[in-house]
Amino acid sequence: MGKIKAAVIGAGRIGKIHVGNLLRMPEVEVAAVCDAFAGPELQEWAAACGIPAVLRDSDAVMADPSIEAIFICSSTNTHVPLILQAARAGKHIFCEKPVSMDVRKTEEAVEAAREAGVKLQIGFNRRFDHNFKRLREHVQGGTIGLPHIVKITSRDPSPPHPDYIKVSGGIYMDMMIHDFDMARYVSGSEIEEVYAQGGVLIDPVFAECGDSDTAIVTLKFANGALGVIDNSRQAVYGYDQRVEVFGSKGSVAVTNDYPNTAEISTADGIYRDKPLHFFLERYNGAYIEETQLFIDSILHGKPVPVSGTDGLQAERAALAAKLSQRLGRPVKLSETLELAAQHSILA
Amino acid sequence: MGKIKAAVIGAGRIGKIHVGNLLRMPEVEVAAVCDAFAGPELQEWAAACGIPAVLRDSDAVMADPSIEAIFICSSTNTHVPLILQAARAGKHIFCEKPVSMDVRKTEEAVEAAREAGVKLQIGFNRRFDHNFKRLREHVQGGTIGLPHIVKITSRDPSPPHPDYIKVSGGIYMDMMIHDFDMARYVSGSEIEEVYAQGGVLIDPVFAECGDSDTAIVTLKFANGALGVIDNSRQAVYGYDQRVEVFGSKGSVAVTNDYPNTAEISTADGIYRDKPLHFFLERYNGAYIEETQLFIDSILHGKPVPVSGTDGLQAERAALAAKLSQRLGRPVKLSETLELAAQHSILA
Amino acid sequence: MGKIKAAVIGAGRIGKIHVGNLLRMPEVEVAAVCDAFAGPELQEWAAACGIPAVLRDSDAVMADPSIEAIFICSSTNTHVPLILQAARAGKHIFCEKPVSMDVRKTEEAVEAAREAGVKLQIGFNRRFDHNFKRLREHVQGGTIGLPHIVKITSRDPSPPHPDYIKVSGGIYMDMMIHDFDMARYVSGSEIEEVYAQGGVLIDPVFAECGDSDTAIVTLKFANGALGVIDNSRQAVYGYDQRVEVFGSKGSVAVTNDYPNTAEISTADGIYRDKPLHFFLERYNGAYIEETQLFIDSILHGKPVPVSGTDGLQAERAALAAKLSQRLGRPVKLSETLELAAQHSILA
Amino acid sequence: MGKIKAAVIGAGRIGKIHVGNLLRMPEVEVAAVCDAFAGPELQEWAAACGIPAVLRDSDAVMADPSIEAIFICSSTNTHVPLILQAARAGKHIFCEKPVSMDVRKTEEAVEAAREAGVKLQIGFNRRFDHNFKRLREHVQGGTIGLPHIVKITSRDPSPPHPDYIKVSGGIYMDMMIHDFDMARYVSGSEIEEVYAQGGVLIDPVFAECGDSDTAIVTLKFANGALGVIDNSRQAVYGYDQRVEVFGSKGSVAVTNDYPNTAEISTADGIYRDKPLHFFLERYNGAYIEETQLFIDSILHGKPVPVSGTDGLQAERAALAAKLSQRLGRPVKLSETLELAAQHSILA
Repeated sequence: MGKIKAAVIGAGRIGKIHVGNLLRMPEVEVAAVCDAFAGPELQEWAAACGIPAVLRDSDAVMADPSIEAIFICSSTNTHVPLILQAARAGKHIFCEKPVSMDVRKTEEAVEAAREAGVKLQIGFNRRFDHNFKRLREHVQGGTIGLPHIVKITSRDPSPPHPDYIKVSGGIYMDMMIHDFDMARYVSGSEIEEVYAQGGVLIDPVFAECGDSDTAIVTLKFANGALGVIDNSRQAVYGYDQRVEVFGSKGSVAVTNDYPNTAEISTADGIYRDKPLHFFLERYNGAYIEETQLFIDSILHGKPVPVSGTDGLQAERAALAAKLSQRLGRPVKLSETLELAAQHSILA
Repeated sequence: MGKIKAAVIGAGRIGKIHVGNLLRMPEVEVAAVCDAFAGPELQEWAAACGIPAVLRDSDAVMADPSIEAIFICSSTNTHVPLILQAARAGKHIFCEKPVSMDVRKTEEAVEAAREAGVKLQIGFNRRFDHNFKRLREHVQGGTIGLPHIVKITSRDPSPPHPDYIKVSGGIYMDMMIHDFDMARYVSGSEIEEVYAQGGVLIDPVFAECGDSDTAIVTLKFANGALGVIDNSRQAVYGYDQRVEVFGSKGSVAVTNDYPNTAEISTADGIYRDKPLHFFLERYNGAYIEETQLFIDSILHGKPVPVSGTDGLQAERAALAAKLSQRLGRPVKLSETLELAAQHSILA
Repeated sequence: MGKIKAAVIGAGRIGKIHVGNLLRMPEVEVAAVCDAFAGPELQEWAAACGIPAVLRDSDAVMADPSIEAIFICSSTNTHVPLILQAARAGKHIFCEKPVSMDVRKTEEAVEAAREAGVKLQIGFNRRFDHNFKRLREHVQGGTIGLPHIVKITSRDPSPPHPDYIKVSGGIYMDMMIHDFDMARYVSGSEIEEVYAQGGVLIDPVFAECGDSDTAIVTLKFANGALGVIDNSRQAVYGYDQRVEVFGSKGSVAVTNDYPNTAEISTADGIYRDKPLHFFLERYNGAYIEETQLFIDSILHGKPVPVSGTDGLQAERAALAAKLSQRLGRPVKLSETLELAAQHSILA
Repeated sequence: MGKIKAAVIGAGRIGKIHVGNLLRMPEVEVAAVCDAFAGPELQEWAAACGIPAVLRDSDAVMADPSIEAIFICSSTNTHVPLILQAARAGKHIFCEKPVSMDVRKTEEAVEAAREAGVKLQIGFNRRFDHNFKRLREHVQGGTIGLPHIVKITSRDPSPPHPDYIKVSGGIYMDMMIHDFDMARYVSGSEIEEVYAQGGVLIDPVFAECGDSDTAIVTLKFANGALGVIDNSRQAVYGYDQRVEVFGSKGSVAVTNDYPNTAEISTADGIYRDKPLHFFLERYNGAYIEETQLFIDSILHGKPVPVSGTDGLQAERAALAAKLSQRLGRPVKLSETLELAAQHSILA
């Protein structure tokens, strides 16, 4: 079996992570890296990695029939056009989250991939974290019986740059979207309704962007379970990523990873180091696994582990949360498109 | 200084706990126990405790000028009349929670005690738990900066008897009322708005009583912080009582107490015993301390640590939660009385 | 059944703890407190407790046939004469550890109690700690299979006063004696041999007294298991009391108790309060239970939970450790008396 | 700067780990793998890895002047001859532990490398574990003041094959040698004396080989600190690797790593998965780092992080422990050679 030739579009932080992980896979050849802002620095980096082509435009990649797989890591507004183009070109697609900030466009993209018969995997990397996988195994295996309450805490160590906040799509679409996916993943059920309350407690720049920096969203699931997600853009003690599922036979909870187990006891108290700092440290293994599984799904004709529909459902929940906060009332996922239209919110 | 003569009205489980704790205090004399259902068994128990009088009717106690302090531990519907009577008689009052299920009547009772110049303490025992006290010290001392998110988990090991469910006032007034008080206690701020979602996931009997057995309530505080409380009537692993306050400089979290620290490692995994089973085990020390502080407030002319207003505010939040679930929308505490009237809900 | 009349001899810290615990037992009457240094302060304290008699001399107590039980809490050198006297007088005896610093005299005392048919319980309070009891249950119940390794850590928060160090009997007889008893208690086997190494790392005053402040002793048990105890007179983070038993099917470990479960997360790290400070805090419940069981053994004709032989065996191990350190070689418990005689060490 | 050409001698489990790690380093070229038992399987494996040469005899490698670095991963009896040969050939040497089972031969090898001016690093991989590194930082940084007590627990999940036990050199030279090195590493002090007690509690095959399967060794350090190491060949709950250093200002302790943080709460208790199974899982990162640092030391002319002397000192301690158990008395490291000669024990 020959190597799968892949191209990575968008060579920012996350694009480079995927390149790095692909380079370690003997079954993959990274044929090209495309970036609209490609310059000498990227050329040099690609050369050091042994990647033959660095392009500003992705058209050549799309036109190259030898390239089987495309990793879309460019800015969110480019995702849907690239998916449509890649689907038409018959290429398998790995796309970072969110697919788009407009649920209808995401639907289009998902449909296009489906019709073209190409694989489309969405970058919900946290599903591949050792802790969340183990938690889900317990839920699915029946250890805790029927789920009653799902609790997700997700806090970043520090806010993104103000330039990014403006184009981020807001806390629900940019940050909590991961948690909406996690909620579906660990509960094994669809989210039916959300109620969102957000606040600006960290930095007024969020208010200036019409965004929140702190939010709590409650969930109702199709299976009757209830849920709650809390997000903060700034946990000074580091990346805080915890999930608990409580059910009829017990609960399973996962907490943070730490750089070491050292416990210090002094006259002042008992100490330990802070958790792993941020997503690069915490989800290092998860990034490798999601990429490996995408490649495996191509090689072995298996379904991708995170489908376009998964991407779509998380976006619907994010949109519902945005609407809920705006309207000050709970919002059903089934009414989001209509409400979004009424209130001229991107859907 | 002579001993304070006290009478305990209502000799159920909680009444007996207070009697037991009062008997250990050298500065108190338990002069009488009143219980509408007093029989030979109670007579015997009182005799063994060295309590001189067992009465079915509390009037004699109210009429006895030597009795300075009354502990009201009878059923909730008797609380307000007893408070009014005791206040008129100039007796200091310790009243179990909730004062009543009608916020207006509670207001009356609180006002009566205020006018009579007698002390009125409400039985929010959890404020005196070693964990929650330490958490609050950190919040008040500024360890975590300004509070942003308050999270409270409160789950019972098993549901109450169906007979009790019917008259309990529902999960918000009977169970979550403790957590509403805890939210105010640890945040140092008033609750302004709640959004409640409840479900019946444990036992259909709750639905038959028009009640929920599982609930998640989100909170908005006057200081801008957000909060969430989750309740379940059945955590099979035992009493689950945890609080976390997250703020601008960090977080403080308290978790359950365990009967021992033993950790077992075997070929099957690592395990430990379940948390302390229920409130009698977990809050043993807290019950002693709340009673001691009530007695101290009488002896030393100090304010009580949990005032009638504290009782009232928690009831308002519980009523708002009940309304929120009924109406399917967030409810401000300031609108509860009006809404309750409109919807013929007890207020 | 009438109350058991008890007298407490020695009204120092530990004597007062026993008095306090006895006063809470309805089946006991504390008839007298004896202390060679009794003054107005003790008189006042006893009066407040409702104890009718305060004596300097214990002879009256011994001569009073109505007194059934004697608690010996005076200095170690008085223990054996008081046991002999109480045994002759037919009184049940609770004696603090060690019975004496001379194993032969302890043998005499144990024998005297046996012949007189009175109960003799030794104050190894740690056996009644919730953690160590649970650990032992697991070992005895077979959870960890056959014990292979026993590890005991026992460190005090700060050294005793130099005046006490001089008369303490040294680290092995004064401090590690508790751990020798614990080793027997948790392993269910006799100690056959010890090897002791001690050092003076905290305060030169220990060297001046011919004592060590830090020690590690390895153990061989009759059942083939190996063990190790480490002691320090100064753990700045507080009382450190841990035990681990490792066996063919796993291990069970108990660690310290904490005043609360609060965990603080800040930009500097994760921290919590220090463990419970010292024995009064940590073993509060254990003191109550050992006294209750002693009283129960009298009331119900049951064996005491810690026998004179238990006291004797721990002293033998302590003597062997002292000899081992002096001689720089492992010492069998069976050779201690002979060696002690050869080397003029108190036995 | 060109790539460093390296050859790996001995292609067993540990040899293949080093090859795997070297292959990921862009600054290294694995030129050859030598194994006395090389067959078609190894040829195939090497081909898949892109290693050009597979040899049965290492002479060609030693004779090839382009090869700068040798990794010695063959059986222990071959280490010294290979070091001598490599040193003569001017090659840098990474050698697995122990260098040999004869301290005098190890001295020779260390001296040969020194004279030849080649680097010699010993494979004490645990020094590069994230936990132990952090612990040592705290000790060296003064967090815990002067070290008083060092405690090391090191237990394998299951015993090696009987064929291996026979040639292993025994529990002290094969297994505890890692812990002797750890004791030196974390304390920053030399071991001066040991007292060893070992037993056969797991499998009689150890007795048949004149070996122990369970051992406790106490240590005296040059700086006055005391220490203890406990080893077991079979911890059914998995690899148990813990270290604690206690000192004048507190203690620092590291415990095991776990595959996830999931905590399960059920009606039966609280559970979690066992620790990482064995050294491949636990020390994966440490193996990478030790190899990287060896390569760095060659590239940048820096000292190796684990010297030949480090290897020698750990062997001396292991020999002393073996002698101590045999003689039933504490043994100073300074007397080992003489004692070994007297008692015809390999030194």
